[in-house]
Amino acid sequence: MTYECDVPDDVDRHGRDLHGLDSLNVTACRTRDGIKWGVVPPDVIPSWVADMDFPIADVIREAIARRAATDLGYPTWLEQPGCGPLADAFAERMESRYGWRPDPAHVRTYTDLNQALQVLLHLTTRPGDPIALHMPAYNSFLETLRDMGRRVLPIPIGPDGRFEVPDEPAPVLLLINPQNPSGRVFTQPELAALAEYAERHDALVISDEIHADLVYSPARHIPFATILPERTVTLTSASKAFNMGGVHCAIAHIGAEAVRTALDGRPPHIYGAPGALDVEATVAAWRHGDRWLEEVLRILDRNRQLIAERLPSRVGYRMPEGTYLAWLDLSAYGSPVATDAAGFLEREARVKVGPGPLYGGGDAFVRLNFGTSEAILEEILARISSALA
Amino acid sequence: MTYECDVPDDVDRHGRDLHGLDSLNVTACRTRDGIKWGVVPPDVIPSWVADMDFPIADVIREAIARRAATDLGYPTWLEQPGCGPLADAFAERMESRYGWRPDPAHVRTYTDLNQALQVLLHLTTRPGDPIALHMPAYNSFLETLRDMGRRVLPIPIGPDGRFEVPDEPAPVLLLINPQNPSGRVFTQPELAALAEYAERHDALVISDEIHADLVYSPARHIPFATILPERTVTLTSASKAFNMGGVHCAIAHIGAEAVRTALDGRPPHIYGAPGALDVEATVAAWRHGDRWLEEVLRILDRNRQLIAERLPSRVGYRMPEGTYLAWLDLSAYGSPVATDAAGFLEREARVKVGPGPLYGGGDAFVRLNFGTSEAILEEILARISSALA
Ligand SMILES: Cc1ncc(COP(=O)(O)O)c(C=O)c1O
Ligand SMILES: Cc1ncc(COP(=O)(O)O)c(C=O)c1O
Repeated sequence: MTYECDVPDDVDRHGRDLHGLDSLNVTACRTRDGIKWGVVPPDVIPSWVADMDFPIADVIREAIARRAATDLGYPTWLEQPGCGPLADAFAERMESRYGWRPDPAHVRTYTDLNQALQVLLHLTTRPGDPIALHMPAYNSFLETLRDMGRRVLPIPIGPDGRFEVPDEPAPVLLLINPQNPSGRVFTQPELAALAEYAERHDALVISDEIHADLVYSPARHIPFATILPERTVTLTSASKAFNMGGVHCAIAHIGAEAVRTALDGRPPHIYGAPGALDVEATVAAWRHGDRWLEEVLRILDRNRQLIAERLPSRVGYRMPEGTYLAWLDLSAYGSPVATDAAGFLEREARVKVGPGPLYGGGDAFVRLNFGTSEAILEEILARISSALA
Repeated sequence: MTYECDVPDDVDRHGRDLHGLDSLNVTACRTRDGIKWGVVPPDVIPSWVADMDFPIADVIREAIARRAATDLGYPTWLEQPGCGPLADAFAERMESRYGWRPDPAHVRTYTDLNQALQVLLHLTTRPGDPIALHMPAYNSFLETLRDMGRRVLPIPIGPDGRFEVPDEPAPVLLLINPQNPSGRVFTQPELAALAEYAERHDALVISDEIHADLVYSPARHIPFATILPERTVTLTSASKAFNMGGVHCAIAHIGAEAVRTALDGRPPHIYGAPGALDVEATVAAWRHGDRWLEEVLRILDRNRQLIAERLPSRVGYRMPEGTYLAWLDLSAYGSPVATDAAGFLEREARVKVGPGPLYGGGDAFVRLNFGTSEAILEEILARISSALA
């Protein structure tokens, strides 16, 4: 099956829509040169990798251009820990949005979250150690655990979104909250149960909160560091909420003193540092990006409901409280859908989604990325529905 | 003493000169917000940190703007080792400029050279080990050796620029070629003597060639990897020649198999990766920056001669064959100049230079940065000459 798309006359040559974020269409997006659109055949709509389709906020683009125009030499904050303005922008944002007051002195910077995770696991655990982790889970982190020979101690998330805290101990609880791919935003009682687990087993909590800014009311994000400050390492970056996966600038806020001490025992620059453009883009996003973010959140909130309205009722779907990711269960369809749901959808619906097994889920599951415009999401959902009919 | 400067009417609001790289003046540069101009008092001219004053090439600025305008998500080469186009651009440049054919498969990326050095020393040496190194030497590397408890086995560079290969063995020869701060570009016989040393003592050669593109005819840069391919790790980036110290994108070409094996034993992402903007800037510089670079080299070549012409003959100065750095010997002046030459020049000439001891040199030495326009260099040299008069 192939599909045709209208050529839009309301986009500029970079595929930026002239009428706002929500009126992007497929033809405009095909001009993008990132991996999301760049590697799919021309009649396939990509809904796989965790990039949104929205162009980045103008304030970010302007901050990058300003740095490139004025002085791309060593920045003033060259020798400052936490890259100076970055640690401050992070701390201010956490306080104003989440009522958490991080200590800028406990901020370390990395290029990306997966790097930070590898550093932390390398310093605090050994091959064979179990790492407690909600399942299904973000594929790159699963790959890291596999690459480093750490064992997943699964905390399965059920179809209703609930989970049981495990009995078995683990030296590390790797919390992803908001969770990828389920879109769960954990509640106060859920976090309290996890905190109780961590205390009981003297576990370090590595809390990936990269999707924190992508939470839909009435759900709200609670930083784990507000619950167990001295046991928690918080990881985040602006790359998901502000749609710039190519920008490499990640924060680790290290509440656990033993981890800071272990890091201090390493050569000071062995893990590198983000570049000035990456820092500027991140600071601009956190300080000036919220108008853009609000518009995006309105679109995403509408989108998560559109999925429930448009997909056939046999598709299992629990509306996420955060992220732009939907975890779909096609097991009601039987073979050939349920035996390779992602393959089926790519072949028959010409939509590329994330295959369930990539996240440690079943063959009947797929992860759908709804970080896109109404027109594109409608097209994706229509294609899937018609392939399943 | 204070100095006044004319306000220019031929610069744009970013301090970019409208008449070409060589007509920059002090007032224009003071609008820069990088560390070089940003941290000095208003009547001091900065000639310390190794940033040039020239605005970056338009092709680099355009590449950055294009990436920010089109798609700042995960790049197409996300999973490719050596960041895809980066390893290729590096390999092509080495071949066309220096007749060296690196293997793109042996390329690893880091955020900066000092990070790469720390990784390499961490994997191949232990605290207390001697590291053979020409002295004086690049301050950040000396700091790294100190921070990591490695001992410098000095290879002193004499006033005539010559050196003797040491007798004592070392597991690593840390070669900086072109050398900072002497500006030496080592000749074929000199490199052959160093290679003989490395072979005799079974030493790994870590060859920092970051200044390779800044060499003045008739001197020419010879990659050490062309001499001892399997014993050499070559480090470089575009950040010096193309004046973008804030861009974090460094290359390590790892000719030594044992080092590749040691790296393969580490978690694959533990050392991070440069961001997409950093990679784009570097690829643009290497592929399209040579017209800009040629103009800069003409200015720098003139500048290194201007220093010889303008400074009093009692100032010891050996014209560098490469880099934009001049190593000046003020010991002929006696106290108070010779006892703290950098302090004297900052106080009396209102020029901030690099103090000799920072590079492991004497108190009577300073490092002067001549990567600037004729007008600014003339002003720097006039101030120094008058303070010494
Ligand atoms: C839960 C989670 N953590 C982290 C990341 C980003 O990882 P990195 O910063 O290594 O690109 C993502 C990207 O999708 C994610 O979903
Ligand atoms: C010899 C040498 N190596 C490396 C660098 C740059 O180091 P990094 O990439 O860590 O900023 C410089 C900068 O002046 C240098 O002179």
